[in-house]
Amino acid sequence: MTYDPATLGQFTITATDGAARRGSLVTAHGVVQTPIFMPVGTQGSVKALAPDDLDAAGAQIILGNTYHLYLRPGDDLLARKGGLHRFASWNKPILTDSGGFQVFSLKDIRKLSEDGVEFRSHHDGSKHFFSPEKVMSIQNNIGSDIMMVLDECVAYGADYDYTAKSLELTTRWARRCRQAHPRHKNGQLLFGINQGGFFKDLRERSLAQLAEIDFDGFAIGGLSVGESIPEMYDMLHHIAPLMPRDTPRYLMGVGTPLDILEGISAGVDMFDCVLPTRNARNGTLYTSQGKVNIRRAEYREDDSPLDPLCPCYACRTFSKAYLRHLYVAQELLSYRLNSLHNITFFLTLARQAREAIEQGRFAALKAHYQDVFAPAKDGGKP
Amino acid sequence: MTYDPATLGQFTITATDGAARRGSLVTAHGVVQTPIFMPVGTQGSVKALAPDDLDAAGAQIILGNTYHLYLRPGDDLLARKGGLHRFASWNKPILTDSGGFQVFSLKDIRKLSEDGVEFRSHHDGSKHFFSPEKVMSIQNNIGSDIMMVLDECVAYGADYDYTAKSLELTTRWARRCRQAHPRHKNGQLLFGINQGGFFKDLRERSLAQLAEIDFDGFAIGGLSVGESIPEMYDMLHHIAPLMPRDTPRYLMGVGTPLDILEGISAGVDMFDCVLPTRNARNGTLYTSQGKVNIRRAEYREDDSPLDPLCPCYACRTFSKAYLRHLYVAQELLSYRLNSLHNITFFLTLARQAREAIEQGRFAALKAHYQDVFAPAKDGGKP
Repeated sequence: MTYDPATLGQFTITATDGAARRGSLVTAHGVVQTPIFMPVGTQGSVKALAPDDLDAAGAQIILGNTYHLYLRPGDDLLARKGGLHRFASWNKPILTDSGGFQVFSLKDIRKLSEDGVEFRSHHDGSKHFFSPEKVMSIQNNIGSDIMMVLDECVAYGADYDYTAKSLELTTRWARRCRQAHPRHKNGQLLFGINQGGFFKDLRERSLAQLAEIDFDGFAIGGLSVGESIPEMYDMLHHIAPLMPRDTPRYLMGVGTPLDILEGISAGVDMFDCVLPTRNARNGTLYTSQGKVNIRRAEYREDDSPLDPLCPCYACRTFSKAYLRHLYVAQELLSYRLNSLHNITFFLTLARQAREAIEQGRFAALKAHYQDVFAPAKDGGKP
Repeated sequence: MTYDPATLGQFTITATDGAARRGSLVTAHGVVQTPIFMPVGTQGSVKALAPDDLDAAGAQIILGNTYHLYLRPGDDLLARKGGLHRFASWNKPILTDSGGFQVFSLKDIRKLSEDGVEFRSHHDGSKHFFSPEKVMSIQNNIGSDIMMVLDECVAYGADYDYTAKSLELTTRWARRCRQAHPRHKNGQLLFGINQGGFFKDLRERSLAQLAEIDFDGFAIGGLSVGESIPEMYDMLHHIAPLMPRDTPRYLMGVGTPLDILEGISAGVDMFDCVLPTRNARNGTLYTSQGKVNIRRAEYREDDSPLDPLCPCYACRTFSKAYLRHLYVAQELLSYRLNSLHNITFFLTLARQAREAIEQGRFAALKAHYQDVFAPAKDGGKP
């Protein structure tokens, strides 16, 4: 890894279209063109895909989950192996979350304190403790290009008082993370995370507190946690425009193609979600003509490619009939081809968004996909 | 598919080394260099591998299972889709078995008669009937380059009288297959199958009867069905040299690298086995240094490639430590990388055998691998 300390972390906006931004972010492993979608490589592998598949799909940056990597193979091992990039043979940028989201999903097996959060491994029940300092150290061992602060992700439906207290804790943890990881140490950037549930004043309070800390970017956490789409979009459009303009904005764990376009229209630059890979394994595929449930009998004899506009190996090589056969026969190849296609679709969507912003036609692109993925056409499922 | 009827089915031996033969077989989808190993694509997919992986591994010909393809997606569908080659986007040769071996494995749900064999689907229990004519028709629909006759594969331990009666039935079925599929119809070759259990005189009788029928090649069936390795090798060395010299010899369902080398030394030209792909999924990998159980803790920190002599993507790209992590974490990528490696190993072994025969050093190659895979080194497991 060689990088220029003078440009590291630089975020340059080269075009805007309404609130949508076209930019680029300099990381230690290369420049990321935004808006961008980041495939999720939970355990050091984007499920069913190898680095060559990700390259072919046009992936610029992938995500690793600190919680999972800490438990297996262990961040100590990753450090000895020269970090996750070298271990997984992925030499482009990596973003790691803080592990907070996973730990707070383990509702019954965690204990929260000012210092951090105690939890039990979902593998073997063993006890572990994540403090802000600990998750910085783990992410240092992983060697990701973009690290995330430890935050408390409050459950959907949390009341005002709990949410208010929680966001203050998240701010205190954010300061401790910054202190534990001085700016650009090891060439690793650090992003803060906005919380505040579904209370606009609390979201603003969180943002004001975080903005005083010297982060390389800011994320919106705590959305897509069970709320309705109108609720999510309402908060997204309220908070995104208030976020610092000169650093990247990252909407965590979101979402569908329409969610991503909505986020871009609100001024968000970065997205990640397990949706394309998880849905691929369930046979739900995203195409330029809408969603396809490849297991459906209507595709049994369908000689046409899954998506005639898609450049991926699956679409170039096979018919829907064959993809359906692989899915029905539960062939392992089905997982790879479906995942490759969906990841290609999401990355193509991000590329189209970048081009549309440059050309001042982002609203038209979004309207096009709103039509393609209209609930009447896709059965209303995500 | 375009082929020259004048050369179709031509088998040319270009070198010999002891009983080992270096040859080439002309099929409608290309020339197969022998000796060759054929990866098994049970349901129209070599498990976890795409055609591009098979190309990269050096596969010349793959096998499809008539029983499985008949049940799913159905040979009628395959016929409508232009055959298995087009359906699966594999434009090199394909060999199909007759389905007999699978049906005779369904011990409790089959009924044997002169006309054929009745069985129930392992999917849904539905009743089906395979006659010699039916399996020819199915394989015509599949469009394989090499078809196999329907045979009764007698269980290990079958007595002399049963085996004698059975081989006569197999011969009568072989004649009916030849009649139902005239020579080179649709450009499809047809192989006979030698049976006779573990009785040398019955094996010879079967061979004498089959040799009177005009087949494009002859297979040894009914080995590797539960007997000891010395028993198998004894029968192999007895029968292979008695088979017609001017057509290819195929040892069905065999086997380990040492079994394949033993077969080649007895004059066999073609092999297939699920071993490399099945073992790959269990984490057992074949390398130029012997077998590797990638799940073992000793590989946790091993930075070296799985096999420094292997040209496959897995060996070129990843460490044993990462391959172990993928296996332990049950990542889908593990299946692909392990399968790609094992198939590459088996195809490299076949290529090395071809070169060694050409250069008159096959015995040395076999001795080398007997040392590499000596039971003391690999724990004695297959």
